Amino acid sequence: MVLSETKASTDFPIHNLLAERWSPDQFQDRSVPAEDLRSLFEAARWAPSSYNEQPWSYIVATKDSPEEFAALLSCLDAGNQEWAKSAPVLALGVVSLKLTRDGKLNRAAVHDLGLASSNLTVEATSRGLVVHQMIGIFPEKAKQIFEIPDNWEVWTALAIGYAGEQEPIQAGAVKKRKRKVLNEFVFSGKWRNPSSFLRAED
Amino acid sequence: MVLSETKASTDFPIHNLLAERWSPDQFQDRSVPAEDLRSLFEAARWAPSSYNEQPWSYIVATKDSPEEFAALLSCLDAGNQEWAKSAPVLALGVVSLKLTRDGKLNRAAVHDLGLASSNLTVEATSRGLVVHQMIGIFPEKAKQIFEIPDNWEVWTALAIGYAGEQEPIQAGAVKKRKRKVLNEFVFSGKWRNPSSFLRAED
Repeated sequence: MVLSETKASTDFPIHNLLAERWSPDQFQDRSVPAEDLRSLFEAARWAPSSYNEQPWSYIVATKDSPEEFAALLSCLDAGNQEWAKSAPVLALGVVSLKLTRDGKLNRAAVHDLGLASSNLTVEATSRGLVVHQMIGIFPEKAKQIFEIPDNWEVWTALAIGYAGEQEPIQAGAVKKRKRKVLNEFVFSGKWRNPSSFLRAED
Repeated sequence: MVLSETKASTDFPIHNLLAERWSPDQFQDRSVPAEDLRSLFEAARWAPSSYNEQPWSYIVATKDSPEEFAALLSCLDAGNQEWAKSAPVLALGVVSLKLTRDGKLNRAAVHDLGLASSNLTVEATSRGLVVHQMIGIFPEKAKQIFEIPDNWEVWTALAIGYAGEQEPIQAGAVKKRKRKVLNEFVFSGKWRNPSSFLRAED
């Protein structure tokens, strides 16, 4: 059950899979079937990436393995641990910053991890699951615990599960479903010049 | 019309909006209705972001304004210009690397631009449109042409339109629809240790 306020109040129509996505901080005590997890990461797999580098990897822990779950939870900062502990599945988003073909910096790498995790999130929404992504983690601790090689960086964490029915822990979580309006970030010709197609009367 | 080979050959089922997405390098000579463009950027608007910073902006050019289109096209590298010139709409993905609340580095910024552009791409797919993202651009040239302030960085470009029916210019474009298998990038407990839920017989 999702509070009605969690659905985006859009100015223009968007697909339900995007409008219904939100980042809860309470999860039901209910595990995610392996079948769904496979499809979530399969969705990440098919994201586009620069030079098809697929610079992402994920470390995943479910509560089926309490030790692995505790180890992964310990890589989140205290504020995130407080709520993310209720999720049945946690993951770390790991990224290779160098191109495999020549070892040069892949300027798209972190961006492309975002594309993969976004695909995972769309797939999750389509299966009644929710994903709450985090940047507040301890990357070096995670590298040590999970023996991640030097050429990979831990960048994000993801809590995955079924949205809880309680009020959010973070008071503003639902109220935060606010966004800049389009003419604050979609420009043409010159910075801060709103694109003409934004005017709905066109 | 989309070649059948462009659909992802998935090992596990994923939503059609994800399986059908691909990055063509030929576009039909057909403009994108303003109504659709509004919904594409509305979709980007509702992506999640760290601290709800929404660190993304877009500079958009359509062929309705040949000068703006030429200016934006000139910000792509030669290889990308060759094919992207056939798209009816081009955009630059621009990102603020600093948190608005304290001016500190936003480690999630580039990742979150990816989340926004991914949302845009899902919306595009749902409307029969395609998006081809690029990292091969001239960021400083773009900043100068579009008077983008110092605290914003041009990171990506996007070509948006209707997939062309010709063979791709880039010979391997369709053949490139290959991906690592899941046990090459989804691990548990330890790096390179494939997650147990990946075994479909579970």
